[in-house]
Amino acid sequence: MSHNSFGHLFRVTTWGESHGPALGCVIDGCPPLIPFDLARVQDALDRRKPGQSRFVTQRREDDRVKVLSGVFEDDRTDGLVTTGTPISLMIENTDQRSKDYSAIRDTYRPGHADLTYQQKYGIRDYRGGGRSSARETAARVAAGAVAQMVLERLFGQVQIRAGLVSIGRSTTEKRDWAAVSANPFFCPDAEKAKDWEALIDETRKAGDSLGGIVEVEAAGFPPGLGAPVYGKLDQDIASALMSINAAKGVEIGDGMEAGRLKGTENADEMRMVDGQVTYQSNHVGGVLGGISTGAPIVARVAIKPTSSILTPTRSVTKDGADTEVVTKGRHDPCVAIRAVPVVEAMMAIVLADHALRHRGQVGGFGGVGK
Amino acid sequence: MSHNSFGHLFRVTTWGESHGPALGCVIDGCPPLIPFDLARVQDALDRRKPGQSRFVTQRREDDRVKVLSGVFEDDRTDGLVTTGTPISLMIENTDQRSKDYSAIRDTYRPGHADLTYQQKYGIRDYRGGGRSSARETAARVAAGAVAQMVLERLFGQVQIRAGLVSIGRSTTEKRDWAAVSANPFFCPDAEKAKDWEALIDETRKAGDSLGGIVEVEAAGFPPGLGAPVYGKLDQDIASALMSINAAKGVEIGDGMEAGRLKGTENADEMRMVDGQVTYQSNHVGGVLGGISTGAPIVARVAIKPTSSILTPTRSVTKDGADTEVVTKGRHDPCVAIRAVPVVEAMMAIVLADHALRHRGQVGGFGGVGK
Amino acid sequence: MSHNSFGHLFRVTTWGESHGPALGCVIDGCPPLIPFDLARVQDALDRRKPGQSRFVTQRREDDRVKVLSGVFEDDRTDGLVTTGTPISLMIENTDQRSKDYSAIRDTYRPGHADLTYQQKYGIRDYRGGGRSSARETAARVAAGAVAQMVLERLFGQVQIRAGLVSIGRSTTEKRDWAAVSANPFFCPDAEKAKDWEALIDETRKAGDSLGGIVEVEAAGFPPGLGAPVYGKLDQDIASALMSINAAKGVEIGDGMEAGRLKGTENADEMRMVDGQVTYQSNHVGGVLGGISTGAPIVARVAIKPTSSILTPTRSVTKDGADTEVVTKGRHDPCVAIRAVPVVEAMMAIVLADHALRHRGQVGGFGGVGK
Amino acid sequence: MSHNSFGHLFRVTTWGESHGPALGCVIDGCPPLIPFDLARVQDALDRRKPGQSRFVTQRREDDRVKVLSGVFEDDRTDGLVTTGTPISLMIENTDQRSKDYSAIRDTYRPGHADLTYQQKYGIRDYRGGGRSSARETAARVAAGAVAQMVLERLFGQVQIRAGLVSIGRSTTEKRDWAAVSANPFFCPDAEKAKDWEALIDETRKAGDSLGGIVEVEAAGFPPGLGAPVYGKLDQDIASALMSINAAKGVEIGDGMEAGRLKGTENADEMRMVDGQVTYQSNHVGGVLGGISTGAPIVARVAIKPTSSILTPTRSVTKDGADTEVVTKGRHDPCVAIRAVPVVEAMMAIVLADHALRHRGQVGGFGGVGK
Repeated sequence: MSHNSFGHLFRVTTWGESHGPALGCVIDGCPPLIPFDLARVQDALDRRKPGQSRFVTQRREDDRVKVLSGVFEDDRTDGLVTTGTPISLMIENTDQRSKDYSAIRDTYRPGHADLTYQQKYGIRDYRGGGRSSARETAARVAAGAVAQMVLERLFGQVQIRAGLVSIGRSTTEKRDWAAVSANPFFCPDAEKAKDWEALIDETRKAGDSLGGIVEVEAAGFPPGLGAPVYGKLDQDIASALMSINAAKGVEIGDGMEAGRLKGTENADEMRMVDGQVTYQSNHVGGVLGGISTGAPIVARVAIKPTSSILTPTRSVTKDGADTEVVTKGRHDPCVAIRAVPVVEAMMAIVLADHALRHRGQVGGFGGVGK
Repeated sequence: MSHNSFGHLFRVTTWGESHGPALGCVIDGCPPLIPFDLARVQDALDRRKPGQSRFVTQRREDDRVKVLSGVFEDDRTDGLVTTGTPISLMIENTDQRSKDYSAIRDTYRPGHADLTYQQKYGIRDYRGGGRSSARETAARVAAGAVAQMVLERLFGQVQIRAGLVSIGRSTTEKRDWAAVSANPFFCPDAEKAKDWEALIDETRKAGDSLGGIVEVEAAGFPPGLGAPVYGKLDQDIASALMSINAAKGVEIGDGMEAGRLKGTENADEMRMVDGQVTYQSNHVGGVLGGISTGAPIVARVAIKPTSSILTPTRSVTKDGADTEVVTKGRHDPCVAIRAVPVVEAMMAIVLADHALRHRGQVGGFGGVGK
Repeated sequence: MSHNSFGHLFRVTTWGESHGPALGCVIDGCPPLIPFDLARVQDALDRRKPGQSRFVTQRREDDRVKVLSGVFEDDRTDGLVTTGTPISLMIENTDQRSKDYSAIRDTYRPGHADLTYQQKYGIRDYRGGGRSSARETAARVAAGAVAQMVLERLFGQVQIRAGLVSIGRSTTEKRDWAAVSANPFFCPDAEKAKDWEALIDETRKAGDSLGGIVEVEAAGFPPGLGAPVYGKLDQDIASALMSINAAKGVEIGDGMEAGRLKGTENADEMRMVDGQVTYQSNHVGGVLGGISTGAPIVARVAIKPTSSILTPTRSVTKDGADTEVVTKGRHDPCVAIRAVPVVEAMMAIVLADHALRHRGQVGGFGGVGK
Repeated sequence: MSHNSFGHLFRVTTWGESHGPALGCVIDGCPPLIPFDLARVQDALDRRKPGQSRFVTQRREDDRVKVLSGVFEDDRTDGLVTTGTPISLMIENTDQRSKDYSAIRDTYRPGHADLTYQQKYGIRDYRGGGRSSARETAARVAAGAVAQMVLERLFGQVQIRAGLVSIGRSTTEKRDWAAVSANPFFCPDAEKAKDWEALIDETRKAGDSLGGIVEVEAAGFPPGLGAPVYGKLDQDIASALMSINAAKGVEIGDGMEAGRLKGTENADEMRMVDGQVTYQSNHVGGVLGGISTGAPIVARVAIKPTSSILTPTRSVTKDGADTEVVTKGRHDPCVAIRAVPVVEAMMAIVLADHALRHRGQVGGFGGVGK
């Protein structure tokens, strides 16, 4: 059992605090001979890193990733490949300005894990939240890029694409995935993204913040991934997405709305089309009875608005006195924006893990692993 | 790794198909010297079992539980206690009528795992869904009753209460937990339950079914359960609830709505009250940064409407021909009703597991385990 | 984590006390479509069961095994096959005579886990040792028979053969595996087995018992099973064999003797023979750097003599008084004899687990899983 | 499941190749508020590192350890303490001379994992053995030093002491633990150590190497650690010691000899002494029925002689040609010497893990965790 690992056969263990010398991850179980491209890991990190636009935090985190183990030159291709040994990735923390932490040291910030962390462990690294900091997600994004390489080697041209589909009460139904990389909100709707510029500016001016909803779609995966009881694919997606900082709700396919529908509205009927079983709709979001159907896997996660706002919020000090907290500085007005690459990474990790689990447990006798 | 186990230190492994001789579970890691009351296990099973009202399936499942190992007479009390060894619970299947399965044998029912199961394993037990049958949840309910005994021994008078808060688009905000056991819907609102009688009758008459939303509240638990990264308490609740048959969405506290709020609306402010840190609200649903706050832990799960309906639904046969499926017989018009005791059980199992994990990993140096 | 499970992808969880209503195991991770032969499970149990000769305990344990889940008729062959779901095997305890346990209830037997068990759990099932009883190994033998079926499906005609190679100071170098089933000691040397009849009679007459050494050889397995660091094949064999009751030493290949040799004596040189890399000797016992070489895998385990003897042994009561223990009744004079089928079973379980681990983690890119 | 992790609740994951930029470990599950002394980690590494005497390899490995996460200043003591988060330790590789690897690149060294590694993964890092290199054990030694800190905090003045008790056929019965640090062989017998100087010089001159046996004793631990079936303390010790490079046999207490004894010779009788149950002997090596007795825990491991010798040994090339291998250079004539600190470390890791497992699963209701 590990409280800092995710996955079973593709297993990611992350380590590091936001204000220590470095953070990183160890990926155990990555199969050998997967072409390894460090530039792709760096690209993924660059998407997540702060300061990419005026709508996210302006903290400077350089996020240069180093690979310390697990890859080697392949004689046959002259390129790097994985060797089947643990892949250790490290990111040094560069923005550790010496500053005065006395305010947050003695006060528990509302909406953050400061008090609960202290109650659990009896000690906390008050500089930036320690392990509760969203900075840990940099390690997830790095591991997710490696998971992507594994999935492409196993399944060819698969696509895992995430986007921000709501900020506050402003939402879009459009899924133009090409638009995602062209706007600072990772929004799959270029026009809606325009509207959000004003919304964020306004929110910030009001000393407030906003929640958001991220959707992810994984296409090109075969039927048969998952298992019917406690190894359900959607169970592990729920676990993965709810493990992201500030997540409060997770949906697969129709999600919470499925609880409000009739059977006639929710059924995905099947027809034979060109000799293939084809679903006429995808209310289930690509997962039926815990097992992938072959249709796109669709999930959503709600990210709550940060409590790090300019509006004074009532709180207590560690000495048990009432106080008020006002958070100045470089915080994200909508943390859901920078959650997008993290959601994508977690989906890739879940799928890589399930692909290997299928091979291990079904062993090629069933469908996918043949 | 196991696809049929849930939990780490309080670990439940279930086995059995709906149409085999028996089903059951093995609970590993239950601490010794917990007073063991088999009648409570039976009571929990009786709440879940079919035929309790005209609003659920009329299948006859007797669900008598036997304890095969793990308990012994305690000299000191003359009662049964756990011994720290695996607790094996078995329920024999009594309603195995020999009947003609040829229809479902050759046709994949839409909305069920028939096709995905076949695609994964290359074989399926077509009699009633095999491991994908909701009958597996009887084993969860039995294990949940044991988890409850552990939690009471560890924390005294804790309460885990679940109820059905929506059927289709009919929803209630009332949380009168005393009402739950007094109506056939496990609804925490006696009047709404009255309305639902007509709603279900009407739905059944229309040859349709309805989804529902179950809410669960766990009160009386200390702060400090959970962990900040991949051992988050809410992550494991999400995993547990999404592992229930037909679940499509999971929420903690404000849930998906948290993604639509402002920071000023969502913050749980803190004040000192009688020398204790007290939260002024509970938007987070009792979990902050993955760790329990001490406030009630609140979660919801959406259960989709069953596709086993009288309205013909398009499907395919195993030989690749188009067909239509009409499900006659004894099916639940709203499977969310009988999910209520299962939700309660899964919450108890998650909390028992986390209580032991806290003791093991924090080891009594921090807060809870002291 | 589980204290009652062995294996990762082929995972066996055992339950049950020697004097409860039943004992059994749940096998999780068995691939689907493996031909399942219950008679082979029963045969394996019959080899282990008491009363097969006058040289072992005369307790009557019928050991009839039932399969409760995980198998189904295969349309293609009309035979039973596994379905990929948990296989639950149960053996009812039939020899539960009501007898007077007051002697062993109040006294800690030397050489048994009575006192340590009580110290750990604060309670023990004093009737026959509870979970510490060797009766638990019946469940291992049943699971081992299923592991054998998996290995044959994966690798064809493999052979796992164990035999008793020493009783006390009497030892044999002969490995005539055909002889094993033809003598009551499972000895791979028919003449030595003759000598042992007198040795056991004499030992019993002297009110004493004897230790023994079991050797197991697994032939026909490919190179590539195992892993270089903490998933070493020999590490897991050591774990499996040391988990058997009364085991005190484990050896792979040359074993402890390897620590006394020179490099020139211990090296297994390699030559090309008929286009194949061939080892000129097998000092390593088929495992090099934690990974199988393709040569027979050879291991040994030392089983201590039981302390349940007629010679009075000093001990203490639970009330803290000095006493003496004399064990009358139906005990094995050399428990190593009946350990032979258990050793065979554990080797099969380790190999089935590693075969699936290889498929899952290496995923068919490396050698074996191709 | 992880092939590069050891332990469950005190879980050590190691990473890194001998010729990559660095190696290290992540320790997950270390309880918070344990005083952390980096100098002790460095001291442990210094004992293991090469070049400490003329009897071991003269490779220069500086082995400076850095702590990257998991510790923080404790306000109360001004010293570092653990925080309950993952402890990441890293050792940079400094002796990566660019050299010509073409000889070992194309030839499989006998007695090393070269061929088996290639067969498993289809690729290997031929520079020094990759993950199969004993260099990985530096990470174990670092983790073991942290485990020691945990054990001292939990149990006070415990002692884990290992020593080399045999080289080849030269063995000692003396256990003068104070002598261990005063001779270059870690031998608990100063006189025997003198003899070994000549023995090693002679062996080296003969172009040969020698095996050895390491014994470890853990004293001061309470009864109750371990579990009766698959969580046996001695099972995990066997697993830990067999996972060390070149290990071929593991013994607990009387070990293999227990298989050659009579019941009357092997029994550990009990008496009440000063109101305490006291064992009159310790044939079981401190573990009975898988659970610690409170007596010293005693284990031994046999380390085979290295095949890296000056005497030509027959082997094959990767192109399938017969060849001969002669290993020149800086190799250890008896790798068992430098295994001593590794054995000590693995024992500490097993005990720390079991101490936390006991707290988690027994939860303080039984003996130890009270």
